[in-house]
Amino acid sequence: MVYLTRRYHFSASHRLHSDALSDSENTQLYGKCNSPHGHGHNYVLHVTVAGPVDPSTGMVMDITLLDRVVEEEVVERLDHTFLNLDVENFRHVVPTTENVCLEIFKLLGDKLGSKVTRGFPRLKKILLEETQSNYFEYEG
Amino acid sequence: MVYLTRRYHFSASHRLHSDALSDSENTQLYGKCNSPHGHGHNYVLHVTVAGPVDPSTGMVMDITLLDRVVEEEVVERLDHTFLNLDVENFRHVVPTTENVCLEIFKLLGDKLGSKVTRGFPRLKKILLEETQSNYFEYEG
Amino acid sequence: MVYLTRRYHFSASHRLHSDALSDSENTQLYGKCNSPHGHGHNYVLHVTVAGPVDPSTGMVMDITLLDRVVEEEVVERLDHTFLNLDVENFRHVVPTTENVCLEIFKLLGDKLGSKVTRGFPRLKKILLEETQSNYFEYEG
Amino acid sequence: MVYLTRRYHFSASHRLHSDALSDSENTQLYGKCNSPHGHGHNYVLHVTVAGPVDPSTGMVMDITLLDRVVEEEVVERLDHTFLNLDVENFRHVVPTTENVCLEIFKLLGDKLGSKVTRGFPRLKKILLEETQSNYFEYEG
Amino acid sequence: MVYLTRRYHFSASHRLHSDALSDSENTQLYGKCNSPHGHGHNYVLHVTVAGPVDPSTGMVMDITLLDRVVEEEVVERLDHTFLNLDVENFRHVVPTTENVCLEIFKLLGDKLGSKVTRGFPRLKKILLEETQSNYFEYEG
Amino acid sequence: MVYLTRRYHFSASHRLHSDALSDSENTQLYGKCNSPHGHGHNYVLHVTVAGPVDPSTGMVMDITLLDRVVEEEVVERLDHTFLNLDVENFRHVVPTTENVCLEIFKLLGDKLGSKVTRGFPRLKKILLEETQSNYFEYEG
Repeated sequence: MVYLTRRYHFSASHRLHSDALSDSENTQLYGKCNSPHGHGHNYVLHVTVAGPVDPSTGMVMDITLLDRVVEEEVVERLDHTFLNLDVENFRHVVPTTENVCLEIFKLLGDKLGSKVTRGFPRLKKILLEETQSNYFEYEG
Repeated sequence: MVYLTRRYHFSASHRLHSDALSDSENTQLYGKCNSPHGHGHNYVLHVTVAGPVDPSTGMVMDITLLDRVVEEEVVERLDHTFLNLDVENFRHVVPTTENVCLEIFKLLGDKLGSKVTRGFPRLKKILLEETQSNYFEYEG
Repeated sequence: MVYLTRRYHFSASHRLHSDALSDSENTQLYGKCNSPHGHGHNYVLHVTVAGPVDPSTGMVMDITLLDRVVEEEVVERLDHTFLNLDVENFRHVVPTTENVCLEIFKLLGDKLGSKVTRGFPRLKKILLEETQSNYFEYEG
Repeated sequence: MVYLTRRYHFSASHRLHSDALSDSENTQLYGKCNSPHGHGHNYVLHVTVAGPVDPSTGMVMDITLLDRVVEEEVVERLDHTFLNLDVENFRHVVPTTENVCLEIFKLLGDKLGSKVTRGFPRLKKILLEETQSNYFEYEG
Repeated sequence: MVYLTRRYHFSASHRLHSDALSDSENTQLYGKCNSPHGHGHNYVLHVTVAGPVDPSTGMVMDITLLDRVVEEEVVERLDHTFLNLDVENFRHVVPTTENVCLEIFKLLGDKLGSKVTRGFPRLKKILLEETQSNYFEYEG
Repeated sequence: MVYLTRRYHFSASHRLHSDALSDSENTQLYGKCNSPHGHGHNYVLHVTVAGPVDPSTGMVMDITLLDRVVEEEVVERLDHTFLNLDVENFRHVVPTTENVCLEIFKLLGDKLGSKVTRGFPRLKKILLEETQSNYFEYEG
């Protein structure tokens, strides 16, 4: 089993504000991230797929195919948006980077799952860098 | 003359839209950056000051002082904002990274200029990284 | 389960010298790192915590709390020190980066463990970069 | 158990072309990477070994020994070569980065395995960066 | 005057061998870089243009135009090639990174020069990273 | 004229303390950097030389020669030392990174100056990174 990881980039803005909390709870929990008009990041997305190496191609997966799926499902949907208003899934879900991870994993898992032969390649992990100070990982 | 550069970080969002252009000109010129609710970046700011090395301290400038000025004048003002709405100077000036550079240079030049002895240390240059793909420099 | 990782920085010096070895064994094993007055590094510390995403906040853990614990327990204790002389734990333990990892994991595990609800968030991993050429990981 | 990772660098060129495929299949699958005279990369190799910390040295493994093995077995063999023609193993195996990973793991595993006491340190993982956009991992 | 820099990436291989030198001089001067079948790098190209900020757009230059020129003139020509054989200009000129810099500056200068109004934007500088250990700059 | 820059690495420790200042002035000015037993950094040194490209070699300078001079004059002298005690020049000069820059420029300028033909290659600039947050430049 070999793991292949590709890095992708998108720039977006978000506001952290939960409908389940009062205004003062939002302010206290999210601090500056609750600022009303939002703020933004250059997100770096690492997509890891796992599989055996195909002996005739020497590859775990055709990278062109992976790029197409990630571009269509994730980058086109999230890049240069204000996540809270422009992306359907974040109208009622707080777009913390944790939740963006879960959403991306779901989008890619569904799409890659339909292109798989005998269980491989399999989506293994999403790693999403929000800033130089933090990143988040989800393995399904 | 030695140059000292410090790096600072802030995250903000912006929308590129010029009142001097029609809607279709805005769309054509700025592309996705004209998206109505904005998008964001992790900006990396390099501030360079120039001066001789003080023989008694071995320093071009007290870094604590530089940090305080940049924090107060730039980071607190721009970090976690939507530049177009939250920062006075960008209500009528397009917040391209070029214009953010000019604004930061002006803010710092005014403030540092008032703390100078015999002309030094002098603000030499602002370098502002917008994404991993581009950065801008201004020397006054 | 989502993993959240935060990066922290501290600068310290150390000397690799083991009381369990003779002087010539120390010289042979540690080479330049045995130099008598020590040398230093910019350490980069990655702290990973694991947990489910809280549906009301969208977060694995309040980052402000994590930052406070790491600052108090690790950064204030180790930053700008000579580890061998200034940090109690390394008076009789060689401050190799392996041992610094173990010590940081213990300090954080104790402190974070006391702030946990139903077992989460849990300290998952410490990764400590010593130079651009090497890093160490410990998972408890 | 502590994991120690060292980074190594080598520059090489390769051509992706599989004898198991027709010319048009090669062109379609590998695209520009099938260009007849090859192209190249600055590879970054991360070698991870795992083991307990020796209480008398504070180390998982003598880094000097690890460096010598990796230099002799991998860097000298692959650095500044055209993998397809200059490295025996890739005369009949496509030098995709997946296959380079498998080969490096084999070379290092054999050599490190012969230097082990009571099962440790053990070669844990190879991570090989091909470009800023992708990297591959293999754990044996 | 503001400086705008964009980063571009291409992967290529080259062999350092000068027709003006004997075989033994080539070996002695270029060392491993004289290896007969070449070796390769991930080149990072920084293109800097200078100009005043257009008050109606807030920009030094339309980045889309810059990207198109660099893609057509440089990246398509050099990416995934063996410079010595695949690029006309390096059939009789040693493709050291110094010479690749000069060639790129000439290609871009000619093309950007034809798109300029009243002297701006002007190609200011080329910076070309060959490895993590070295980079070259040329300002015309 | 082409500029060639090479990056070198060394790890050292230092204490900022000036004999020209009182103890309380030292504490106030240098803060944690005045800590009595010192602390350390991974320094990254960029050495830039300038010259025309030699038409027979395609190079500004033989990199092997540059590496040898920097290794002998700088890296061997400063790497894995406590600058204040182990390096003659810093026994009476505060080893701020400004002063380390000046010292390195002097060491390299003297040595490279003696290897020059018709004025080239010429030492152009020293850039010294102290941490991820600051770096210093000196051009003689």
